[in-house]
Amino acid sequence: MKDLKLAVIYYSATGTNYQLAQWAAEAAKNNGVGEVKVLKVKELAPEQAIAENKDWKKHVEATKNVPEVSLDDLEWADAIIFSTPTRYGNLPSQLQQFIDTTGGLWFSGKLANKVVSAMTSASNPHGGQETTLMSLYKTMHHWGAIIAAPGYTDKAIFEGGGNPYGVSVTAGEDLKDTTKNAVAHQVKRTLQIGGWVKKGLSE
Amino acid sequence: MKDLKLAVIYYSATGTNYQLAQWAAEAAKNNGVGEVKVLKVKELAPEQAIAENKDWKKHVEATKNVPEVSLDDLEWADAIIFSTPTRYGNLPSQLQQFIDTTGGLWFSGKLANKVVSAMTSASNPHGGQETTLMSLYKTMHHWGAIIAAPGYTDKAIFEGGGNPYGVSVTAGEDLKDTTKNAVAHQVKRTLQIGGWVKKGLSE
Amino acid sequence: MKDLKLAVIYYSATGTNYQLAQWAAEAAKNNGVGEVKVLKVKELAPEQAIAENKDWKKHVEATKNVPEVSLDDLEWADAIIFSTPTRYGNLPSQLQQFIDTTGGLWFSGKLANKVVSAMTSASNPHGGQETTLMSLYKTMHHWGAIIAAPGYTDKAIFEGGGNPYGVSVTAGEDLKDTTKNAVAHQVKRTLQIGGWVKKGLSE
Amino acid sequence: MKDLKLAVIYYSATGTNYQLAQWAAEAAKNNGVGEVKVLKVKELAPEQAIAENKDWKKHVEATKNVPEVSLDDLEWADAIIFSTPTRYGNLPSQLQQFIDTTGGLWFSGKLANKVVSAMTSASNPHGGQETTLMSLYKTMHHWGAIIAAPGYTDKAIFEGGGNPYGVSVTAGEDLKDTTKNAVAHQVKRTLQIGGWVKKGLSE
Repeated sequence: MKDLKLAVIYYSATGTNYQLAQWAAEAAKNNGVGEVKVLKVKELAPEQAIAENKDWKKHVEATKNVPEVSLDDLEWADAIIFSTPTRYGNLPSQLQQFIDTTGGLWFSGKLANKVVSAMTSASNPHGGQETTLMSLYKTMHHWGAIIAAPGYTDKAIFEGGGNPYGVSVTAGEDLKDTTKNAVAHQVKRTLQIGGWVKKGLSE
Repeated sequence: MKDLKLAVIYYSATGTNYQLAQWAAEAAKNNGVGEVKVLKVKELAPEQAIAENKDWKKHVEATKNVPEVSLDDLEWADAIIFSTPTRYGNLPSQLQQFIDTTGGLWFSGKLANKVVSAMTSASNPHGGQETTLMSLYKTMHHWGAIIAAPGYTDKAIFEGGGNPYGVSVTAGEDLKDTTKNAVAHQVKRTLQIGGWVKKGLSE
Repeated sequence: MKDLKLAVIYYSATGTNYQLAQWAAEAAKNNGVGEVKVLKVKELAPEQAIAENKDWKKHVEATKNVPEVSLDDLEWADAIIFSTPTRYGNLPSQLQQFIDTTGGLWFSGKLANKVVSAMTSASNPHGGQETTLMSLYKTMHHWGAIIAAPGYTDKAIFEGGGNPYGVSVTAGEDLKDTTKNAVAHQVKRTLQIGGWVKKGLSE
Repeated sequence: MKDLKLAVIYYSATGTNYQLAQWAAEAAKNNGVGEVKVLKVKELAPEQAIAENKDWKKHVEATKNVPEVSLDDLEWADAIIFSTPTRYGNLPSQLQQFIDTTGGLWFSGKLANKVVSAMTSASNPHGGQETTLMSLYKTMHHWGAIIAAPGYTDKAIFEGGGNPYGVSVTAGEDLKDTTKNAVAHQVKRTLQIGGWVKKGLSE
C-alpha cells in the first residue's frame, strides 16, 4: 500500500462532506497510503447565491486553499473516494460537471480499474443517501472502475448507520465517532482492494 | 373516494410490515376509502426454516387468517400500497414470486393505471430502505402503474424519517407515532391520487 | 385537456433530444393541449469546448432562439416532459444544474403533483438509457411529482424499442417513425394523466 | 488464474441465459481458469405452469442434469458470473429465492470479496436489461462483493450492444457472435480481477 495514490474528491456547500473527506484522508495516512490528495470540485453556483447563505459563504472561504480537482488528478489516482451531498437522490451539478469533463480520459481507457467508493449526506435521515451512492456507482460502471463498497465487512459499518453502499450521514447533525470509525473502515477497505488491483495491473 | 378500492399487499416475516399494513388500512378507513383489503403474499420458505426462528413462527401463526393475495385482488384494486422488508436492497422472493405471476394481467393491460406507493423496512437504518422502494417502483413502471410516492408533501414525512419514496423503518425498533403519522399521510395521498385517476378513467 | 399546460424541457448537445422535444410538442398539439412550451436548459460548457465540436456548435446556433427554462416555467406547468442525453447513466450537469436551483419551489410545495415523464438517448444501444430515466424519476419522487411512465400501455412502445420508463434512442442513428410514434403515445399518456390530476386538484 | 474457481450461476426459462452461461464457461476455460461450474438456481414455478409453455418445458428437460447451485458453491467460488432474465426490471423469484437463503454465509462474512459480474436478457430491446443488472449489483454491495462490470474496457462491449453493466440481449432473437465476444471479454475481465483479489487475499 506504500505506493498507492488516493484521491479524495468531494463537494461540500456547508462542510459536512469536507469533514468526511478530511477523515478519509486521515484514515488513509493511518493506513500507510503512499500519497493522498484532498480535492474539491469546482463551485458552479453564482456568487450571489453563496453570499446569501451564511454557512455556505463561510465554508467557501474556509476551504479556498483546498485545490480543485483536475483531470490529471484522476489519471494520477489508483483509488478514489468521493464524498458528496445528495441533490434529490442524484449528484450535485458541481460534481456532475466535473464528471462530464472526463470523456477524453474515458475514451482512452484511463478511468478503467480505478478502485472507488463513496460517501454522502442528505438533509433527512432517508433523504437520498442510498440512491445518491447508487447514482455515482452507475457512473463508475461506465468508467470501468472497480467498486469497493464497504458492504458489512466490519462492525464499524453497522455502528455507523449500516449503509453497505458507503458511509452516509444526516447533514446538520453532529458527526459522530461511529461515523468516523465507519469512514476509517471504508477507507481501509478501498485501499486494500486498491493495493491488490495495483499490484495485479503491474504484473 | 367513497368508491375507491385499496389493496394493502405485504410480506412480513416477523411483523414489522404487517404492522405498517395495518396502519395503512386504518388510515384508509379514516379517509373514507370505499373498500380496503389487507393481503399477505404467499410464504415460500420451508416450514423448517420458519420453525427454527421463534419470531417468524409466531408471526406466521398470528396471521394465518389474513387472506393471501390473488391476481383477482390486483385486478379489483384501484390503488395498491405495498409493504415489504428489504432483501439486500431488493424485494423478498415471496413478493417477487407473486409479481412474477402477473404476466397474464400485464399482457392484457389490466395493471395499467393502478395508483401505487410502497413502504419498507430493513435491519439497519440505511440497510436498503431507499433502494428497495426503487426496485419496486421500477416494476411499477413496467406495469404502467402510476406512482404516488409521498415526496415531501407533508411535514409528517419529515418527522417520520424523511424518506420521499415511501415510509421506511428500521426493523426491530419500536414503531413510533411519527411513523404512523407518515403512513397516514402516504395513504391519504395515494387515495387522493387514486381518486383522481379513477374518476378520469371513468369519463 | 384544453386548459392543460405542458413544459417540454430538454438538454441537447447535437440535436437528438431537441428532435424528441419537438416531436413531443407536436404530439401535444395534436392532442389538443392547452399550451405547450419547448424549453432548453442553460448551457454550462465553456464556449471553447463547444467551438471544438462542429456538431455541437451547429446545434447551439440553430437553437439560439429556443427560450431557456426558468423556475417560473416549472411553476406554470401542469405536466412536464423531460428529454435528456445520458452522462454515464446520470443526468448531464446542465440539466442537473437547473434541477439544483429548484430548492425554493420545492420547499414551498410548488413542485408537488406535477405529472412527469421523460425521454433519453445514449451513444450505445444499452448505454444508460434505462438508468438515466431512473435517475430522473428518483428526483421526481423527491419533488412529489406523479410519474406517468409509459409502461407497455400501447403497441407503439413495443415498436419503439420497448422501454417502459420512457422513449429512448441511440444517438447518431436515424430517428425513426417508430420512435416518433412512441413519443406520441408517451405524450398522450402524460397529458391524459395530467388532465386527471389537474381536474382533481381543482375540486 | 490457474487456481481460480468460477461459478456461473444462472436462471433460464427457455434457454437464453443458459446459452450465455455456457459461453461464459467456455470463455473461462479458454482463459485458463482453475475450475468452473455452471449451476442453475432451483425452479419455483409449479409443474403445471411449465407444462403449459412448450419452450419452457423443453428447456427444463434439456437441462435436468445441470446441477442446482448450493450455498457451498457460493462459498467455494472466488468469482461469480450471474446470468438472469429480467422480471419487470428486477430479478426472477427463482434467483431471488436463492439469494434470500444466503443470510448465514453473509453473516459470517463468507460472501465478502467475491468478484462478481452479471449478464441479462429481456423480451424487449430496452425491457429492463440495465435496471436488472443494477438490482443485482445492489445486492452485491450488501454482500461486500467486488463488482467487475465490463464498462467499456474492450471494443467487444461496444460491438455487443454497449452495455457497460454487463452483457445483455433481447430474448428470442438469435444470439450473435458479437454477443459471444462480449461475454468472452466480460469473463476475461472478471477472472482477471478475481485473480488479483485472490492473490491479495492470500498474502
